[in-house]
Amino acid sequence: MALKPQSLTAVLLSMILLLAAAAIAQEGVKPANTAFSQETIADMGRLRDAALASGYAYEQVRYLTDNIGPRLTGSPQAAAAVEHVADEMRKLGLEVTLEPVIVPHWVRGEETAELVSYQGHVPGATQKIVLTALGHSTATPPQGLTADVIVVKSWDEFKALAPEQVKGKIVLFNEKFDKRMAAGGYGLAAYGDAVMYRALSPEVVAAKGGVAALIRSVGGADYRLPHTGVSAWRKPQTEVPAAALAAEDADLVADLAAQGPVRMHLTLTPKFLPEVKSYNVIGDLKGSEHPEQVVIASGHLDSWDLGTGAIDDAAGVGVAIEAAQLIHSLGLRPKRTIRVIAWMDEETSGAGNRQYAKDHEADMANQFAAIESDLGSDHPVGFYVTGKPELQSFVQPIADLLDASGASVVEAVDWTGSDITPLAKAGVPCFQPIQDSRFYFNYHHTAADTLDKVNPQTLRENAAIMVVLAYGLANSNQSLPR
Amino acid sequence: MALKPQSLTAVLLSMILLLAAAAIAQEGVKPANTAFSQETIADMGRLRDAALASGYAYEQVRYLTDNIGPRLTGSPQAAAAVEHVADEMRKLGLEVTLEPVIVPHWVRGEETAELVSYQGHVPGATQKIVLTALGHSTATPPQGLTADVIVVKSWDEFKALAPEQVKGKIVLFNEKFDKRMAAGGYGLAAYGDAVMYRALSPEVVAAKGGVAALIRSVGGADYRLPHTGVSAWRKPQTEVPAAALAAEDADLVADLAAQGPVRMHLTLTPKFLPEVKSYNVIGDLKGSEHPEQVVIASGHLDSWDLGTGAIDDAAGVGVAIEAAQLIHSLGLRPKRTIRVIAWMDEETSGAGNRQYAKDHEADMANQFAAIESDLGSDHPVGFYVTGKPELQSFVQPIADLLDASGASVVEAVDWTGSDITPLAKAGVPCFQPIQDSRFYFNYHHTAADTLDKVNPQTLRENAAIMVVLAYGLANSNQSLPR
Repeated sequence: MALKPQSLTAVLLSMILLLAAAAIAQEGVKPANTAFSQETIADMGRLRDAALASGYAYEQVRYLTDNIGPRLTGSPQAAAAVEHVADEMRKLGLEVTLEPVIVPHWVRGEETAELVSYQGHVPGATQKIVLTALGHSTATPPQGLTADVIVVKSWDEFKALAPEQVKGKIVLFNEKFDKRMAAGGYGLAAYGDAVMYRALSPEVVAAKGGVAALIRSVGGADYRLPHTGVSAWRKPQTEVPAAALAAEDADLVADLAAQGPVRMHLTLTPKFLPEVKSYNVIGDLKGSEHPEQVVIASGHLDSWDLGTGAIDDAAGVGVAIEAAQLIHSLGLRPKRTIRVIAWMDEETSGAGNRQYAKDHEADMANQFAAIESDLGSDHPVGFYVTGKPELQSFVQPIADLLDASGASVVEAVDWTGSDITPLAKAGVPCFQPIQDSRFYFNYHHTAADTLDKVNPQTLRENAAIMVVLAYGLANSNQSLPR
Repeated sequence: MALKPQSLTAVLLSMILLLAAAAIAQEGVKPANTAFSQETIADMGRLRDAALASGYAYEQVRYLTDNIGPRLTGSPQAAAAVEHVADEMRKLGLEVTLEPVIVPHWVRGEETAELVSYQGHVPGATQKIVLTALGHSTATPPQGLTADVIVVKSWDEFKALAPEQVKGKIVLFNEKFDKRMAAGGYGLAAYGDAVMYRALSPEVVAAKGGVAALIRSVGGADYRLPHTGVSAWRKPQTEVPAAALAAEDADLVADLAAQGPVRMHLTLTPKFLPEVKSYNVIGDLKGSEHPEQVVIASGHLDSWDLGTGAIDDAAGVGVAIEAAQLIHSLGLRPKRTIRVIAWMDEETSGAGNRQYAKDHEADMANQFAAIESDLGSDHPVGFYVTGKPELQSFVQPIADLLDASGASVVEAVDWTGSDITPLAKAGVPCFQPIQDSRFYFNYHHTAADTLDKVNPQTLRENAAIMVVLAYGLANSNQSLPR
């Protein structure tokens, strides 16, 4: 709301706002900080409260997941999501640009496996193995391949194998996702520990003459649920087909392999279709004083194909659009431009974020700050800050305001959301909500990443962080340290 | 161990045993109860302790699940399980009988579904629906069928529909499994509330001219995991094909149906093969005084085909065989015969238990008592008793002995395990462990019923109940009230 001082109502409103701001300041805002005016602080409080009462983001998530569905990069549904989100942004009066990006178009095919021979195998019966191809996997022959499986628990164990031990074999990397770390709130660290097998196994197995790479799913669920995720570097000539087994199936193969030879019939028929022209969807809420300076509020629009991509990452897109929607509906106008971005292709190759960094390279100084939400939508306790150490105290007033929803923690980290990582590398201060990730890794990249995993209340808490951060940064009286 | 009084060692041992028994009696056994001799009580204590230290049942479960795998009634794996369990019983010196039973042989076929038209549907894209055919379902045409879906929440809602509203439609019964009841320990009640839709829907939908019946999975998981289970009464002429949707998919269809018409393409191609001769596997540890009187210790050997049937019910079979194994390895001999039974076909038609009741009809008076474990293998707090009210105080000394593993609760109920229900109806006192069922209904009848769901420690606690109950009852000085 831009106040006109000549109106009596406006003057009265100003006084009320100032009193409210003073009360808030007394509660927690350090008086020394002058980056945020009392008016901005009051506006941030109203935006926070509006976010905590809004169902807008949830309805966005609902449409993206239930009505559009899985939005794998390159798919018709990803294209439909681009159109839908652009329309939603236009409804809010944003200046919408579709920035083109050429993306890979990999499609899942048949994916089945069964054990055809092992200790105690019953003739005529099969032990089905639940698995899913890793993103960008190459294919087995259409009728599948049959080979013995060797099981290793670590890189060291694999490295110790001679090529003749691997030649012609299927290799299962049975590194266990550390569920206790995840349950303790260190899901990202557990994920990082396990995910390297996903990334590297197709190439290292090929290098030793193996015929397929299997990994134990990188995730914490015990519901026979395989987790996909990108693997391989799109060099089919040096990579074997790759898939993730459900945790139970990895246990089964490991148990049987400890008893004697295990032979598997494996069929994976994914393929690459021609590359597709897609888009980062960009909606600008133009700034009143520095329209050329942008604060990015973002999530990624593409998802994996097994579920409907609710927590990964319709939720991020939903809260990013809601930031603009709330500012718009409260009649506020930021000093700098708030740029909502629904990124394309976070999951398979990062084409969208690379393209943005390239297209805006000359304009990097005007990328004032960037926020991405890409760790689900469970309760956030605050936000991560990536950049100069001074940023932490700079944004303290914003964190204090978010105390009302239990989100006042500010934690400095040296990494950030993958779509804004190129910006962080170019010196742009970056931010992410610190979501409760204890359950995130049970669901993400699986068929069970669906709307019901989004808690409407905690989604509102994420929206509050997004809008308060975006609006606060866009209205700061000072430049951010960078 | 049968003591010979002429040996000095034996006399000393007797004294030690008497002292131990006295100590136990002081702790909790009501002195008035004379059904169990001090020796029997001491032996039960040793059996309990041996059970709590044993890995035997777990190894049985492991072989049945990992090496043999799913054991659907009529399948080659069910036949292999019969041979395996008979061999294991013979190793223990039991008198093994395979009692023939003719069982149905239903096999799962293709099972896929997708939504092909609905509000916001993206041309060229699909929303896949995760489902699984209910046991004994009839088939759609091989190429599937396409029809509009109507969603009802209850029988009343369905009954209110006129036949012309149902004709040509797929009906989804979206009754929700009460997860809070299950979490509170009332899983069986929640299951009973929801399961009638599974049993009746194929027939009632057919009666109103519908083309397929879908139910929301009867179970508590939220991991895109459909639960099978038997449906239909094998009257294909009056039943439509039937499947259970994962909870997420039921939510999705319900959400879209609330927005407008939803059209589904559904393919289910299960079929009945010719009936098969199978067996209840029976192993008798002959009684020394009343060999003709039998105490049944049992679980069911068949399982559903999606998982490997670990908690449902390799665990029950494992602890039942372990009862005999422990008695055998401690050198004990019961007064009455302990009859281990691995029942066939609990899941699909109950043919095994009906056959046993029929074959032993003339001998029902000698069926002294029956125990079945068929609610998984999580921590048991005691055991259910089905029969005369006086049974509860009769078995109190056994319950007191089980206090050491936290299993001293005795609860009288008017139902029992499904395989021993015909015996209960004929007046045989029946018993079941009271397992913690909070998680059971997340897994049973799903692909995730696998070995890892069996906790070795709580399995031991279940084995302790089975062996102490079986041995105690077999050695009772008195007949049981019936």
